[in-house]
Amino acid sequence: MPLRAGSAAMVKVTFKPGGESGETEAGTTILAAAASLGVTITAPCGGRGRCGKCRVIAEKGCAPPTPSERDQLTGEELRHGIRLACEAVLLEDAQVIIPSDSRTISGKILADDAREEISLRPNVSRRTVVLPAPSLSDQRSDFERVADGLGTPAQSLRMHREALAELPSVLRDNDFKVDVITVGDTIAGVRPPNARPCCLGAAVDIGTTTVVVYLVDLSSGERLATASALNPQARWGHDLISRIEHVQSTPAGLEDLRRSIVDLINRLLGETTEQAGVRRRDIYEVSIVGNTCMHHMFLGLDPRHLAHAPYIPVTREPLELSAEEAGLALSPAANVYCLPVIAGFVGADTVGVLLVSRLTERDHPTLAIDIGTNGEVMLWSGERLLVASCAAGPAFEGGEIRHGVRAADGAIERVWLSNGSIGYATIGSTRPNGICGSGIFDTVATLLDSGVADSTGRLADEQAAEKLQRGLVERLRGEGPQREFVLVESAESANGDIVFTQKDLREVQLAKGAVRAAVELLCSAAGIEANDIAEVLLAGAFGNYIDRRSALRMGLLPEVGVEQIRGVGNAAGAGALAALVSVDERQRAAELARQAEHIELMASPAFQMVFADSMIFPES
Amino acid sequence: MPLRAGSAAMVKVTFKPGGESGETEAGTTILAAAASLGVTITAPCGGRGRCGKCRVIAEKGCAPPTPSERDQLTGEELRHGIRLACEAVLLEDAQVIIPSDSRTISGKILADDAREEISLRPNVSRRTVVLPAPSLSDQRSDFERVADGLGTPAQSLRMHREALAELPSVLRDNDFKVDVITVGDTIAGVRPPNARPCCLGAAVDIGTTTVVVYLVDLSSGERLATASALNPQARWGHDLISRIEHVQSTPAGLEDLRRSIVDLINRLLGETTEQAGVRRRDIYEVSIVGNTCMHHMFLGLDPRHLAHAPYIPVTREPLELSAEEAGLALSPAANVYCLPVIAGFVGADTVGVLLVSRLTERDHPTLAIDIGTNGEVMLWSGERLLVASCAAGPAFEGGEIRHGVRAADGAIERVWLSNGSIGYATIGSTRPNGICGSGIFDTVATLLDSGVADSTGRLADEQAAEKLQRGLVERLRGEGPQREFVLVESAESANGDIVFTQKDLREVQLAKGAVRAAVELLCSAAGIEANDIAEVLLAGAFGNYIDRRSALRMGLLPEVGVEQIRGVGNAAGAGALAALVSVDERQRAAELARQAEHIELMASPAFQMVFADSMIFPES
Repeated sequence: MPLRAGSAAMVKVTFKPGGESGETEAGTTILAAAASLGVTITAPCGGRGRCGKCRVIAEKGCAPPTPSERDQLTGEELRHGIRLACEAVLLEDAQVIIPSDSRTISGKILADDAREEISLRPNVSRRTVVLPAPSLSDQRSDFERVADGLGTPAQSLRMHREALAELPSVLRDNDFKVDVITVGDTIAGVRPPNARPCCLGAAVDIGTTTVVVYLVDLSSGERLATASALNPQARWGHDLISRIEHVQSTPAGLEDLRRSIVDLINRLLGETTEQAGVRRRDIYEVSIVGNTCMHHMFLGLDPRHLAHAPYIPVTREPLELSAEEAGLALSPAANVYCLPVIAGFVGADTVGVLLVSRLTERDHPTLAIDIGTNGEVMLWSGERLLVASCAAGPAFEGGEIRHGVRAADGAIERVWLSNGSIGYATIGSTRPNGICGSGIFDTVATLLDSGVADSTGRLADEQAAEKLQRGLVERLRGEGPQREFVLVESAESANGDIVFTQKDLREVQLAKGAVRAAVELLCSAAGIEANDIAEVLLAGAFGNYIDRRSALRMGLLPEVGVEQIRGVGNAAGAGALAALVSVDERQRAAELARQAEHIELMASPAFQMVFADSMIFPES
Repeated sequence: MPLRAGSAAMVKVTFKPGGESGETEAGTTILAAAASLGVTITAPCGGRGRCGKCRVIAEKGCAPPTPSERDQLTGEELRHGIRLACEAVLLEDAQVIIPSDSRTISGKILADDAREEISLRPNVSRRTVVLPAPSLSDQRSDFERVADGLGTPAQSLRMHREALAELPSVLRDNDFKVDVITVGDTIAGVRPPNARPCCLGAAVDIGTTTVVVYLVDLSSGERLATASALNPQARWGHDLISRIEHVQSTPAGLEDLRRSIVDLINRLLGETTEQAGVRRRDIYEVSIVGNTCMHHMFLGLDPRHLAHAPYIPVTREPLELSAEEAGLALSPAANVYCLPVIAGFVGADTVGVLLVSRLTERDHPTLAIDIGTNGEVMLWSGERLLVASCAAGPAFEGGEIRHGVRAADGAIERVWLSNGSIGYATIGSTRPNGICGSGIFDTVATLLDSGVADSTGRLADEQAAEKLQRGLVERLRGEGPQREFVLVESAESANGDIVFTQKDLREVQLAKGAVRAAVELLCSAAGIEANDIAEVLLAGAFGNYIDRRSALRMGLLPEVGVEQIRGVGNAAGAGALAALVSVDERQRAAELARQAEHIELMASPAFQMVFADSMIFPES
């Protein structure tokens, strides 16, 4: 159907691999048609037919090649339907394939919970090349032929041995038209053209407790599958120090720990590829995030010096190693990228927070906090980036708390004061069986607000209790260190009386004091006051679930408006995903890790004093 | 013994690791003392105390550090006896350690038979660093500490995982004074200081028939041991084509061939380290040379397309891979460097000839020839470098020759005409049992000189024989194709009559014709005449043993003076050694391989005609 003057004939165009489809006027360029469907094709010259970068494959439906296309494409390429999107004009219904290197995807980051948009710019790319067959007058090696097809000098390109080994057959079985997969500047594989999906990556978040693997199609940025499991190193202890002691006490201890985590990651990689129905050997890159101890154990690096002063990591730089070196069963040419760490107790997970929170792009002093057993506090002063770790202890997660429980059905997650009586809510709205982290925050805030506890963290004694509302007085019992507050009576509970003890309150005070002292000391190091902080970012589950008012009431955070406190989600996993899909993000991660000044709180003479002050709760 | 004015007190100085020792006047700088003993210390600034590069270790015997040394060395370095050779003045007997990075060795190349001097500039280097211990106020990672000690930014240095794994212990066990071994820009290991020798390399020459491994101390350039063995691939055939057929006919055929050669190299590496009494895991680099087929088989690359037109190799570029990838059992961080190849039948062994012969540095047209079963002919026109391979066949090595034998005891290696009778000499001066390559050359020259054979390669018939000297006539017998010349009668022989047949002569003619045709076609491609060639270089055993006059008499070579024909020895092995000890030589090898224009003789329409002409022997 040739285009006639004055006609408004419509043609249907479908873009692959995204599947975007729509109608456009005949006579429209492919580039314009793509834009109208929200599909972005790389066109550095602005669509003026000059740079030759907007190559697409359109075997039918277009007007004959323009002079500019004839200039920039070889006869062979034209015969195979390769066109310049900015020049080729649609005349009939057409299907257009956009090779990954001509595609720009700017979408939501792959993790649902990330803060910022990440542009897809993976280290792994795939490109279709159409090569002339060799002859006595063209005896270039198979490798040079491919390099020439990519437009890269052979001497500046590497090729993995196993990729070289399969190269002659794949080229000849596919008449010298193949997809070339590169990882960085190394050709990692050649494949029959348009086999899909064949360019996969995995982001791995190694937590002390849980390990998560995300499988991603690197051509589209699509997250294909996720699998997680408990960290099997728990058999040598739930906390890092116990695991490090296993290294100390057993000759093969480090190898035990390394092997267990590597085996688990291999298993989870298998689960994700099975879920997604793809081949494991099509995974060409893996990004790894974890705290410094997990990072060291995954790499088989001695973690013993992390555990005692001066807490020295073996290395902090971002690392790249081969899948074989890392022990991962993937494409033999796969690359394993480990995000950098900052210090012995400030790991790649913290770099993930810095990366996805865009902390250093704020124009006001901003604080970011990630709390697990260990707390990491990050302060952007507007000019400097300071980080510190503090031993928050497990109280905020319910550890060392008499009726503390993990966040699961039956856990009290909200507590409030209502007309002199205590209200509460449980996860799953079932009978309460204990108090989880967010419930602990609310409990402490409620005790403070009601006067049941004073600013020194002491539960009201008999005498002081006289001033309390009746409903509360009855809930206090015991003497001295045994004094406790009954949150839920056994009649309502699945687990007998649920109480919050004087000792529980002290544990919370220690944890809160440690974090707040870190905030104060970072502010002091940066030459600002805590009051100058305009925004607070909370990472992880902590940021998702605690009541911000309770955190403020406890004096854990500097006094900012509640609306200036924001959660940044699972920033560790999001950081691994960001680094997986974008080399720019890796660059940024390396810069953040270098820029971060680690403040060793223990080295500060003021620490004990500030810590003691920080344990005090605000007056009201 | 302080220096007194007017005194000519002599002090004794010994340099390590070379052991050079001698006396010098007290008051002499270490740099000058070294020079007087022929020991070169790197001093880019000319010994003016400016560049700080001439670091040596002299714990005793020198005057106190000069202001310039105090400027350029840290207190820690000075305490450990590190000095600048150009500044430190000898006052008493002293032992001076020259670290490898301050040492320039310009000596004979390690192979005895190489032509040119090669400066030691290995890709592997060792450097002693003295580092401050970590503290709470200096929490750099172990890796950064080492990088800072080397004066290299941590982000531009890599470190192998296994080297990182042992880093914390080695640093702490040696009070943070260690030797750092780098391979390229990767730290491959850390060692207690001055453990020797700990920086080893191996050069491997993979021949179709024989495999040789040379073990080298990369700090000194010293060759420590050599081991060789027959290529075990011979079980699948003595020639390349039979081995390639094994790949064709058996699914695991390529792996059989790869495994057999890799296993042999591992065994030979073990033999050399045992001979030298060193540790195998101190080998940090291996260089590999071999023809294109051996190169492909060592790497596990499909060699099938080498065997038929258009003879396409998988890759020609120089390659680097990890020892693990190559299957070699060495230091886990070791690097395997494979010299480039030029074409399907022009391999890294030919690159070795180009490299060590310095062919392209000649200012006159020069020919280089390497002959085995396959012949490689290289022509430097003064401007262009052309190479070709030709199927010389095995005749020059005694193959397909009735009484041809390998060069071993009893082989006739020289033949001459003396007063009408035939003189000969055997290897080991024992009773003759056959004729080896150099004997075949002499035999043919003698037959031509005496008129027993004419320029068409025909042995004199009854009639023509009448004109010959009596002693020769009697030696001719048989008719037509069965005609033969008795070189040695059974009475003198260990093996019955030793004859040279009409068919033998034809075999030699075919071989000679193939080589000479290649010479002619290369000259023609370069636009010169064979007569323009001013010098001829002969590689390998061929160049060492054949009589140059016989080669000229046969018309194998263009007509140059005998003194213009030179042997270049075992250039393949020498090439591997050169590349092992010098990155400059690797650079040069890559450039030569790129510069070389491969001329495919089969593609030349003139080939058959030139080949036929080239079979004719010169008239006299």
